[in-house]
Amino acid sequence: MVDAKVASYIQEHQQDALEDLLRFCGQPSVSAQNLGVAECAELARAMLVEAGARAQLLPTRGGPPVVYGEIAGDSARTLLIYDHYDVQPAEPLELWHSPPFQPTVREGKVFARGVYDDKGQFVARLNAVKALLRVRGRLPCRVKFFLEGEEETGSTYLPAFVEEHRGLLQADACLWEAGSVTWDGRPIISLGLKGILYVELVARGPNRDVHSSLGAVVPNPAWRLLWALDSIKGPGETIKIRGFYDSVQPATSQEVEAIRRMPPEEEQIRASLGLSAFVLGLQGEEARRRYLLEPSTSICGLEAGYTGPGAKTVLPSVARAKLDFRLVPRQRPEEVLEQLKTHLKAEGFEDIEVVVSSGSSPPARTPMDSPWVTLLESTAREVYGKEPVVIPTVAGSGPMYYFAEVLKQPTAASAGVGYIDSRPHAPDEHIRLEDFLKGMLHTAAVLEAFGAAGR
Amino acid sequence: MVDAKVASYIQEHQQDALEDLLRFCGQPSVSAQNLGVAECAELARAMLVEAGARAQLLPTRGGPPVVYGEIAGDSARTLLIYDHYDVQPAEPLELWHSPPFQPTVREGKVFARGVYDDKGQFVARLNAVKALLRVRGRLPCRVKFFLEGEEETGSTYLPAFVEEHRGLLQADACLWEAGSVTWDGRPIISLGLKGILYVELVARGPNRDVHSSLGAVVPNPAWRLLWALDSIKGPGETIKIRGFYDSVQPATSQEVEAIRRMPPEEEQIRASLGLSAFVLGLQGEEARRRYLLEPSTSICGLEAGYTGPGAKTVLPSVARAKLDFRLVPRQRPEEVLEQLKTHLKAEGFEDIEVVVSSGSSPPARTPMDSPWVTLLESTAREVYGKEPVVIPTVAGSGPMYYFAEVLKQPTAASAGVGYIDSRPHAPDEHIRLEDFLKGMLHTAAVLEAFGAAGR
Repeated sequence: MVDAKVASYIQEHQQDALEDLLRFCGQPSVSAQNLGVAECAELARAMLVEAGARAQLLPTRGGPPVVYGEIAGDSARTLLIYDHYDVQPAEPLELWHSPPFQPTVREGKVFARGVYDDKGQFVARLNAVKALLRVRGRLPCRVKFFLEGEEETGSTYLPAFVEEHRGLLQADACLWEAGSVTWDGRPIISLGLKGILYVELVARGPNRDVHSSLGAVVPNPAWRLLWALDSIKGPGETIKIRGFYDSVQPATSQEVEAIRRMPPEEEQIRASLGLSAFVLGLQGEEARRRYLLEPSTSICGLEAGYTGPGAKTVLPSVARAKLDFRLVPRQRPEEVLEQLKTHLKAEGFEDIEVVVSSGSSPPARTPMDSPWVTLLESTAREVYGKEPVVIPTVAGSGPMYYFAEVLKQPTAASAGVGYIDSRPHAPDEHIRLEDFLKGMLHTAAVLEAFGAAGR
Repeated sequence: MVDAKVASYIQEHQQDALEDLLRFCGQPSVSAQNLGVAECAELARAMLVEAGARAQLLPTRGGPPVVYGEIAGDSARTLLIYDHYDVQPAEPLELWHSPPFQPTVREGKVFARGVYDDKGQFVARLNAVKALLRVRGRLPCRVKFFLEGEEETGSTYLPAFVEEHRGLLQADACLWEAGSVTWDGRPIISLGLKGILYVELVARGPNRDVHSSLGAVVPNPAWRLLWALDSIKGPGETIKIRGFYDSVQPATSQEVEAIRRMPPEEEQIRASLGLSAFVLGLQGEEARRRYLLEPSTSICGLEAGYTGPGAKTVLPSVARAKLDFRLVPRQRPEEVLEQLKTHLKAEGFEDIEVVVSSGSSPPARTPMDSPWVTLLESTAREVYGKEPVVIPTVAGSGPMYYFAEVLKQPTAASAGVGYIDSRPHAPDEHIRLEDFLKGMLHTAAVLEAFGAAGR
């Protein structure tokens, strides 16, 4: 259990932590649009220094810097805290109820782009560290803060960066970004991420837009693009690329059991999204298993021809689709990319260009029986007063692979500030103040237990 | 042959006619965007009055007015000249080499949105009338100018308007808008238009954009939309809607023969568009027959999710496609609309909304053996010094049906100012000054012959 004085400090200084949060979220940092990213890195460094860390900006190859901060502790053990300071684009802006980069508190919630993913996580962890330092003078273990600025665009620099900084990044465990509670307030501890491959498919027709009366004879790139997409996934929802499922490693019985034990929240999610059904009519455990353990592909964007008001009878010159593939162990993005190209060629779509739009990442999972997981579980149980939900992986993606598998750190996302309806990547992203407080308390408890285990 | 004095007048006053053209094209009139339409109607009326017509604006039900002008003549016969003063949207603006509403003369060509479709036609015809009036004092036949402002958005008001103004619009023949010469300068006389149905298909998924990691279980409207589109037309290029081809009336042997005799310009068109092949690899007569005599469907616009720079991992809430159907005698837009709705329902896409985006029009064709066609042919042969190309229909659409079939006027497009590369509906729309001159000369010859035939 977290020390009573530390807990009191955190509770009494909630307003200070909230002000940190508003300040951090008020700084735009959209890596996909190169909007405010450098300024946000400097702000993160300054906040680390204010908290008491030795902090610096580490350059990456052409991308936004890594913000690295370190604070010594009372034990020989080191915990690496992974977060990122960049955020997704805020579009469509018209669907926000308050401006995405003017953080707004209403009804006990904070609304801002990135407040859940991932600025709130960092600010909560930083304030837990502040509380331990102010109350105790020393941290119970060594803490390394690693904040990157390219997570939302695929962390392309990271594989090389990790190789070059193996010593600096060495740690005994890794506390990953993100973390939420269920609808009924149970803390979620998640041990993996899916991998991702994000591509743009470009089909070209006539060398300029032409009158659509030519449609009887002029090849239409919009039709070609959709036929190509249909060849990748049909209404059966199975990905039809040859070999796509070959590298998929079956889930362990522990993992399947963990999915089975998860609270059945899928109905709330479905209702919240206004959906009459999930794909294939899946429900309950089956829906959860598909969601977390199966690879998928999504059209993230489609564009061709005239999309303005009224009618324009035009046959477009070009059609584009943005497409992601979510991968599970042991699929590899570079392997899927080759399979995709081979597939398009085999299906007669060799004219369709495949552009890898951003960095990819392989999937990663930490085993469910790791002692690091047990520690997170027991501290969460104490802080939240509820049984934690341990899940083998979430459906999202990120560069966990380089920490969990390359640096061989047991890695888990926990001590988070979100809840099921926090709307990452979407309009009205938000967190609840009560979850923000719990995130700080849990982080403090984790640091204490982690340090104690090393003494 | 056109009277020598009239021909001289036209040649000596080319600059005046060009100034009329620049003035008319400089006035934007995008009906789909309600941009400058009222101003353009007033300008057309003023130009008719300047030429010597009694002209007025006739209100339509909520739409832009019809500009109607009339000039008496020496014979009992009446020719109705159909044109329109509205134009297509000018987007994408960045592909124009000069601003679309700042008409620009370079290398013997005039560039402007609408200069071919259809402002150049009207200005040429108006200046032919001016020349006849200035040289002779009277026209050889009665001329009625009918200019509408809603052609590019489907002339929705027109069926009712024609019913209400049958007396006013009565005429012995109709000279239709548009007309071009072939690559080698042969004048084209075309006797028909395809019909059109233009719809927007709207697929809806979650009630807001969500993180694309949900793609394994949340139905994606972009995939659903493309599956629905694929069910309408696959790579075989046949429209798979049940009953779609049932009402198609086989072409007459005269029509097929006319297609066969057409100059083989399809290779130039293909090369000009940078295409390696037409659909299904069609060439020559087969390509022409499909282009002119077969119905078709084109995706004119596609939109879903994030289409900006970089990557955004989002699963869109809505996906939209704009789609046209080009129809041939005796298909009817309202029949095809019902067939489309029934098809989507039968294929399991009853959730996809069908919005008729703008007015539709049925197809129309005037028989190839009409005396009106013979007159146009012989005058064109004289003015151009080349054998005219008479074709049973063009692939474009418009409200010819209401004149050719409802008012029972032999109707043909001739005496035009365009050429094969005039780029209607596309960036850099233009006409050549030499074609503009020929269009005026041919119009004058047509009026003389038409009047003479009535005396």
